[in-house]
Amino acid sequence: MIPRDPIPPTIAWRAGRVRLIDQRALPQRLTYLECATVDALHDAIIELAIRGAPALGAAGAYGVALAAATLPTPAAVRRAAARLRSARPTAVNLAHGVDLALAAYADGGAAGSLAAAKAYADADVRTNRALGELGAALVPLGGRVLTHCNAGGLACVGYGTALGVIRAAHEQGRRPSVWVDETRPVLQGARLTAWELGRLGIPHTLVVDGAAGGLMARGAVDLVVVGADRVAANGDVANKVGTYPLAVLARHHGIPFVVAAPWSTVDRSTPDGAAIAVEERSPREVTDIGGVRVAPAGTSAANPAFDVTPARLVHALVTERGVIARPTLARLARVARNGTGPE
Amino acid sequence: MIPRDPIPPTIAWRAGRVRLIDQRALPQRLTYLECATVDALHDAIIELAIRGAPALGAAGAYGVALAAATLPTPAAVRRAAARLRSARPTAVNLAHGVDLALAAYADGGAAGSLAAAKAYADADVRTNRALGELGAALVPLGGRVLTHCNAGGLACVGYGTALGVIRAAHEQGRRPSVWVDETRPVLQGARLTAWELGRLGIPHTLVVDGAAGGLMARGAVDLVVVGADRVAANGDVANKVGTYPLAVLARHHGIPFVVAAPWSTVDRSTPDGAAIAVEERSPREVTDIGGVRVAPAGTSAANPAFDVTPARLVHALVTERGVIARPTLARLARVARNGTGPE
Repeated sequence: MIPRDPIPPTIAWRAGRVRLIDQRALPQRLTYLECATVDALHDAIIELAIRGAPALGAAGAYGVALAAATLPTPAAVRRAAARLRSARPTAVNLAHGVDLALAAYADGGAAGSLAAAKAYADADVRTNRALGELGAALVPLGGRVLTHCNAGGLACVGYGTALGVIRAAHEQGRRPSVWVDETRPVLQGARLTAWELGRLGIPHTLVVDGAAGGLMARGAVDLVVVGADRVAANGDVANKVGTYPLAVLARHHGIPFVVAAPWSTVDRSTPDGAAIAVEERSPREVTDIGGVRVAPAGTSAANPAFDVTPARLVHALVTERGVIARPTLARLARVARNGTGPE
Repeated sequence: MIPRDPIPPTIAWRAGRVRLIDQRALPQRLTYLECATVDALHDAIIELAIRGAPALGAAGAYGVALAAATLPTPAAVRRAAARLRSARPTAVNLAHGVDLALAAYADGGAAGSLAAAKAYADADVRTNRALGELGAALVPLGGRVLTHCNAGGLACVGYGTALGVIRAAHEQGRRPSVWVDETRPVLQGARLTAWELGRLGIPHTLVVDGAAGGLMARGAVDLVVVGADRVAANGDVANKVGTYPLAVLARHHGIPFVVAAPWSTVDRSTPDGAAIAVEERSPREVTDIGGVRVAPAGTSAANPAFDVTPARLVHALVTERGVIARPTLARLARVARNGTGPE
């Protein structure tokens, strides 16, 4: 018997509804949101009840299935799909999940789109286990790994990408410990990554985002592992704001900076990082914390949700197709052709 | 008539008490704390009601005057002074202020220490105006300046160090605008720097600490200016956690990284950054925000309050003795001997 996963699935289809963990309530409460309509699911995406590039892919696919099950005409389903597809602009997986389920809908109607969404969700967990196992080889014995934001099971359907690498290393007996960046403004590190690592029994210590540089300077970090919202054709990586500074700091200190993501996050139609739309979110996420105003009334704030790390700062891109060292346009093209990693 | 300063003095002597702005209540309320005993002042320092290296210097000096006015014996005064002196270990100015007032007490009793404390506080504002005017020459016309933490009037008795440079540039018609790092965990940027810049009418935009790298990458930062808690003899700089990453990022992008501090912050008895004690504060500052628990129960956190930036990353050290380009042991020794900057 397979032991129960300590992190329940982030999103699933249940009795005609899309059921997802309401991540806004974590870590205080593990509660679920049951979305009976596409509008409810759209709100959940916008308000970050569900987030993380792979999880958004599944949300997009299940969203099309939900549209197909609840809306009266194919035109209405396509309109709902288009709205879901653009709910968040940076993660490529959302569009990918929508497109895949929409193609299945065109061929097989509501049942076809639901089957495609379920297959997409199942594949996500398998993919993450596979890339986690490959990436774990990069974690030295007793390695102190720094991660940013949440690229765990909660960012996916399950298991995780960056945390999948750490989890696989833990399962392989490599005894990793983790520095968890709290990740302002939404604090996915403090709220979600710390919660997952606690459930998994992996030792971890929370720090503010500004502390990573000092930790590296005193030799306390062996490896940086992060997820990705989109990888451009040349290997540039869009990920949570605060990722790029870690890549520059890692390079400055000679520490490997590793990106872990399913191959579906590589968007070969985006030539480079400059072509990636970076979502600008509400300034309230910066000026207020937990609903309480922190900054003086009237203070303006900028809130880019992501930043772009150029490929030349990426030591390795870990995907289920293999570990791609120093990704470039040519190396990614080769993997796209062959379906497996460079060696 | 000199116009009233929009930022009131951070600390003053009033009717036998030490009166200070309670910075914990900002930006919501401008309120004062009246410390009638050394214990009350000690608590105010520990709890960050008053913070900032130059302000702590004045607090140390006034604290000795308060001890002299309220305690029965010279031995009790010296014990109280020693306790104040070690209330916070990183800022050298606190020890400096205590020592100066204690020497005056030895010579002139309670009246002597009070006169010394008042002179120290008055000198702070003059010093900051002088270094601000010198440093303003580094701010290009329309320059977009990024700053971290609060090195404004609130970190001093008045006018500010890093914000003094920006304020002087503003007064000289250089039209600076400011990117304000919110500065987790205590949010001095969001709460205090934004409040000061608002009062001064200097355009500013608040960002999370992790956003600075992306701003630099897109060419939106012309200059980084920060304060200092201690400058070692070789020019290494201890300042608020998150400063060192900015120095590395600034170097990576070819942006000048400038430190503004009174000459008294240069501690020639500390050979280099490795010899600076970095205060580790309560993990609750990281796991909780505004009294609300953010991280899961039981999560451990590390909370170093400062980090150390090596001198080789410092473009210039701005002091009232002059602008010291690329500070080194030899250059700082020359300024110490001559009493003025290198040219």
